[in-house]
Amino acid sequence: MKIVTTTLELKDKVTIASKALAKKSVKPVLAGFLFEVKNGNFFICATDLETGVKASVNCAEISGDARFVVPGDVLQKLVKVLPDETTELSLEGDNLVITSGSTVFRITTMPADEFPDIAPAESGISFEIDTSLLEEMVEKVIFAAATDEFMRNLNGVFWELHKGFLRLVASDGFRLALAEEQIENEEETNFLLSLKSMKEVQNVLNNTTEPTVVVRYDGRRVSLTTNDVETVMRVVDAEFPDYRRVIPETFKTKVVVSKKSLQESLKRVMVIASKGSESVKFEIEENTMRLVSRSPDYGEVIDELEVQKEGEDLIIAFNPKFIVDALRRIETEELEMNFVDSTSPCQINPLDISGYIYIVMPIRLA
Amino acid sequence: MKIVTTTLELKDKVTIASKALAKKSVKPVLAGFLFEVKNGNFFICATDLETGVKASVNCAEISGDARFVVPGDVLQKLVKVLPDETTELSLEGDNLVITSGSTVFRITTMPADEFPDIAPAESGISFEIDTSLLEEMVEKVIFAAATDEFMRNLNGVFWELHKGFLRLVASDGFRLALAEEQIENEEETNFLLSLKSMKEVQNVLNNTTEPTVVVRYDGRRVSLTTNDVETVMRVVDAEFPDYRRVIPETFKTKVVVSKKSLQESLKRVMVIASKGSESVKFEIEENTMRLVSRSPDYGEVIDELEVQKEGEDLIIAFNPKFIVDALRRIETEELEMNFVDSTSPCQINPLDISGYIYIVMPIRLA
Repeated sequence: MKIVTTTLELKDKVTIASKALAKKSVKPVLAGFLFEVKNGNFFICATDLETGVKASVNCAEISGDARFVVPGDVLQKLVKVLPDETTELSLEGDNLVITSGSTVFRITTMPADEFPDIAPAESGISFEIDTSLLEEMVEKVIFAAATDEFMRNLNGVFWELHKGFLRLVASDGFRLALAEEQIENEEETNFLLSLKSMKEVQNVLNNTTEPTVVVRYDGRRVSLTTNDVETVMRVVDAEFPDYRRVIPETFKTKVVVSKKSLQESLKRVMVIASKGSESVKFEIEENTMRLVSRSPDYGEVIDELEVQKEGEDLIIAFNPKFIVDALRRIETEELEMNFVDSTSPCQINPLDISGYIYIVMPIRLA
Repeated sequence: MKIVTTTLELKDKVTIASKALAKKSVKPVLAGFLFEVKNGNFFICATDLETGVKASVNCAEISGDARFVVPGDVLQKLVKVLPDETTELSLEGDNLVITSGSTVFRITTMPADEFPDIAPAESGISFEIDTSLLEEMVEKVIFAAATDEFMRNLNGVFWELHKGFLRLVASDGFRLALAEEQIENEEETNFLLSLKSMKEVQNVLNNTTEPTVVVRYDGRRVSLTTNDVETVMRVVDAEFPDYRRVIPETFKTKVVVSKKSLQESLKRVMVIASKGSESVKFEIEENTMRLVSRSPDYGEVIDELEVQKEGEDLIIAFNPKFIVDALRRIETEELEMNFVDSTSPCQINPLDISGYIYIVMPIRLA
């Protein structure tokens, strides 16, 4: 086997594949990269059994066939420090010899027999979507998912294809985020991807320069394909709750407020709220929203901001972190807060733009 | 009591004083700032008993006298989020009322009785030194100190005034760094400051815009004074070892090498060295220095670089981290490595510039 490639291409593909590397594994091969050299192609693969990546490396020269595993940690560090523009790979017995400039690495390899197959989903439903659009949708919902891995049905993002729309939904039981966009596929289906898989999705979208990505679902696995790289993820075998039930249908109070003003006001009241109560009271009357937080040990803070209000006056309390999280994902200068009453969920959404809603449960008033 | 000041000045002085705040303290007052309003002056003080800071706050208006303690964590966060350019402080019973724009904080204070006195060193030896020069000297030696707090005599930096020079020395037993500069003081003295105090020294130098700083030592405490802020530190009551004994007087091999080339070569060999041995062999012959590292599990790396050599050929091994640490502090493009033999300390210093030397012990060759 002999391979000649640019050092940059080698580094890029190792970095892309490394995100699927098993961090702690009982199987040593899973902490390594599979090198597959066959029919003039060179693939670098990694998997932690939940997600898998198969990256094709563009090479100036590929000869011979080979299949072996390279220790993950060493390879990741090594590709970052190779001195020359070009790198040559060859085998000396069980050693992978990596030569670049006046530097020679001889790395002990492992046999590939135990490396699991990362077969991609070959049939099933598929659609193409704008990379940056999907990236944005993921970013707008992923933070709302439960971080506890034992809450299997909430520790991820729910994907729904419905009436020509792709809808992503995440919830941890206290709040829910929903983003939707039109796609060119009229089929009806849905699946749940774990938070870990979703981070892999983000990684793929973030690392590709391709304007679009193909998503494929075969009932068991989801794959994302961009030019040289295929990423495969297992779907979670758990039922996502019926999210439609928590979205209010009518509202009694509507507040329009500047996003920046609300963000800064929340920063101020959180100085006190973060010292114990984790609760901020919103007192809405006429065109004023007053944010109040008290701590028995440290004192209190009162902060007032101007808003436009329609409907009834209201006093309601929230965990301020849950509001801050949503504001970060809203791109408009002004936003709507839609309320029913002090015990019902509040809906936050950008002003006059559809496609994103955020639902947050209030805290019981003391 | 009533105080009016700019929000920025309040924030700056709280931030400066906060570095002396006790992180975990049995005494709650030490986790707070002392506010001292007296004779038209407003001081913010903090101390963890080892170091103390007394910062004078410039105010547009100061009236009344008061002395109380404000919770540290809340105040630090609060001063960063005040909305208006101006902030007003007043007292309502035991509450400090902080008003800025349409935000009002009422913070519970604590009595100041238990707050320890942070009296500065008033007499003793003192000298003035260029702020950036002292900052540079500290940066060049502090990393070589022992990080273990139980090694009291090495867990700090030794200051020596000798024949019109200020010399700073730090060592952890494996390596030693020494920086010296001329000062305008002919007195002979020395003292040891703990690593924690030295970080406070760095903080002071880093945060002042004053071109010079006054250092004062009274036998028990050291103080650094810049315009509005006095920082007091206790010296360590332990004997720093006789560092002169470890500095070699003559050498048998001298290597001149490009700092950048050596840094990059070390990065490469550390990929393997960091997987167990923490050892790199330097093979010096003619005008070549070959860096070699081997790991029984992962393989080996050989890296060659060009050098200028005088004297004998040599094979010697080092922990590469100890060399990397020194290179970061050398500002010249080329540096000298001066050797006696494979078991004696090596001296690294900038090429043709005095004022900084670094001594590192070799590792026994396998």
